[in-house]
Amino acid sequence: MTARVENRRAALAGKPRRPRRVGDLDEFELIARLAQRLPLPRKKPPFGPGDDAAVIPTGASTLLTTDTLVDGVHFRRDWSTPAEVGCRALEVNLSDIAAMGGVPTWAVVSLVLPPDIEIAALEALYDGIARSALRSKVGVVGGNVTRGAQLSIGVTLLGRPDARAGRIVTRAGAKPGDLLIVTGYPGLAAAGRKLLEESGLGEDQWRATRSGTSSTSLALADPIAKAALARYLTPEARLATGLAAARGGATSMIDISDGLAADLHHLCEASGCGAVVEEVLLPRHPGFDEMCAVRGWRTEELILAGGDDYELLFTISPRRWSGWSGRARGPAGSKVPLTVIGTIGRRHGAVVLERDGKRSPLPARGWRHFA
Amino acid sequence: MTARVENRRAALAGKPRRPRRVGDLDEFELIARLAQRLPLPRKKPPFGPGDDAAVIPTGASTLLTTDTLVDGVHFRRDWSTPAEVGCRALEVNLSDIAAMGGVPTWAVVSLVLPPDIEIAALEALYDGIARSALRSKVGVVGGNVTRGAQLSIGVTLLGRPDARAGRIVTRAGAKPGDLLIVTGYPGLAAAGRKLLEESGLGEDQWRATRSGTSSTSLALADPIAKAALARYLTPEARLATGLAAARGGATSMIDISDGLAADLHHLCEASGCGAVVEEVLLPRHPGFDEMCAVRGWRTEELILAGGDDYELLFTISPRRWSGWSGRARGPAGSKVPLTVIGTIGRRHGAVVLERDGKRSPLPARGWRHFA
Repeated sequence: MTARVENRRAALAGKPRRPRRVGDLDEFELIARLAQRLPLPRKKPPFGPGDDAAVIPTGASTLLTTDTLVDGVHFRRDWSTPAEVGCRALEVNLSDIAAMGGVPTWAVVSLVLPPDIEIAALEALYDGIARSALRSKVGVVGGNVTRGAQLSIGVTLLGRPDARAGRIVTRAGAKPGDLLIVTGYPGLAAAGRKLLEESGLGEDQWRATRSGTSSTSLALADPIAKAALARYLTPEARLATGLAAARGGATSMIDISDGLAADLHHLCEASGCGAVVEEVLLPRHPGFDEMCAVRGWRTEELILAGGDDYELLFTISPRRWSGWSGRARGPAGSKVPLTVIGTIGRRHGAVVLERDGKRSPLPARGWRHFA
Repeated sequence: MTARVENRRAALAGKPRRPRRVGDLDEFELIARLAQRLPLPRKKPPFGPGDDAAVIPTGASTLLTTDTLVDGVHFRRDWSTPAEVGCRALEVNLSDIAAMGGVPTWAVVSLVLPPDIEIAALEALYDGIARSALRSKVGVVGGNVTRGAQLSIGVTLLGRPDARAGRIVTRAGAKPGDLLIVTGYPGLAAAGRKLLEESGLGEDQWRATRSGTSSTSLALADPIAKAALARYLTPEARLATGLAAARGGATSMIDISDGLAADLHHLCEASGCGAVVEEVLLPRHPGFDEMCAVRGWRTEELILAGGDDYELLFTISPRRWSGWSGRARGPAGSKVPLTVIGTIGRRHGAVVLERDGKRSPLPARGWRHFA
């Protein structure tokens, strides 16, 4: 039964209207509705959306990345608002372009939609994509919607090398003696996820907690809880820092979405080197250690292998870094904390953690999608 | 329990080994295995796969399209082999580039995988992607795998305008008086789908039928049945024809994956014109009418709104077309049948079907993903 028929019957019976769902629209109506929610690109692409393919202006080389969020795997609909999910779908891709020191340019979105998704929720999801696109100056030039049993949002993002940097930064290029720098607070997002997991809050209770209409087991007034939940629910790619790193002489870079330890291994693997991470240097958000102690979480485990961090890890020579730190950490005026956590070593694959003067191997544990 | 442990136990008990499944590998092992199956690109991209993003050479403008196949929606695992599914995932995207008269260049693949998918099946799927990539000279430069409840294969494909054509062909540009040309046999793929639906064959019976080890309700010796099933199960994008159309002066073009009638409406909409389709001119594969008659299918319904056609529809002035047809239909030496099915009319949106000298509106029925 269509929403129209159902709603007419509901109106006659004095009942509330049933929200319109994806199954009530055909593909073309749906695409038209969603396209309206996107910001007009600053530079209009010569063609598309609306043709078989979009035609976009590009330079001599293009960066290309793709990432998909699956309902129940990468987000939970009872924890995240639709706008947050949409935003995240673009941000996780932006993080990959940031990790190359690139500038994001154009994106296409591919949605798999169960027919019972409410159209209002889908529009809110697209508003989230639009918000992130606006902030990062990305033009969404097309995409694809299809039905399926499980909601997923796939984004493919293009980028370009930064003209001022004149280069892109890959995982390969770290040199012995380089410093290891990480952005933000790895482990903070994972702490946010664990807070939600352990809260045991149902969808309605969590909504009430967020809107402040009810006080529950999750104390959102607590600054560390607030910071952890924000980093988990609304990650923001480190575009400015990635660009600054490319311009400032970073020798290699990676995003640590698989966990700091796992991605440090990837970087060392690609660069043909090793690394020493000093436990005492690992950055901790104020209140982080206390929260972990109270809840019985292993701080180090969260920081090194928590996952869901969309932070950057890069390497740079001490000489170039001293130039940076003299200028209030980051030519782009970024307020993102940058922390030296160790150095690059000569021995290929030897990734160690130094604690109290003792070194032990740092295993490549991390976020495993199929484990 | 891992496959290794299970298989050791099975070996001790003298039982056959359990095939390894996606859930037995971690993400990185899986990516490494799949990447091995791809052909080495002719022109090696400067970086990637293996970094956060691939970096690929591009020109001043780039074509960009994305399409996702979902298990049970766009293919059935009991009907199609994994290699056919992989091939199809790239071909449906190639069809969009063909419809712009473009040359496909680079692709990324995004897989959502239930953990119980056998690794051998996934490798076969990638072999299908590789086969299609090799044929179309596309370099697959990266992608993403994640787990999910329902298998889906998303491809984002880039392309470039053809240097010799010096232009791309969009849906907008058809002029009154232009001829309407269609490639191949619309409706043939839908007939193949209906043959499988009506056969009621189980997976094993269908496999036996295909391999010729058993004779069943599906007579594969019948040339029309064979042709219909081939077009449904192994569509091949009309790249050469799309290119020839761009070079030969096509004024507008679209791929008719939504059905001939629906996509003709899209083309007329974008071009601000109407069209007259002559029923008697609609191309029919030899034996098609007879098969439809025997099975009680409405021929015209299949041709105009069957869906699953990855054929092209383009418009061209009669003068330019006469140049083409004199050269054995297609400067690219393509053997794809090209058929004039009508003309472009002046009245915006007036799409009519002429039959026995009478005209009636041709509704935009077609393949509706959510209907």
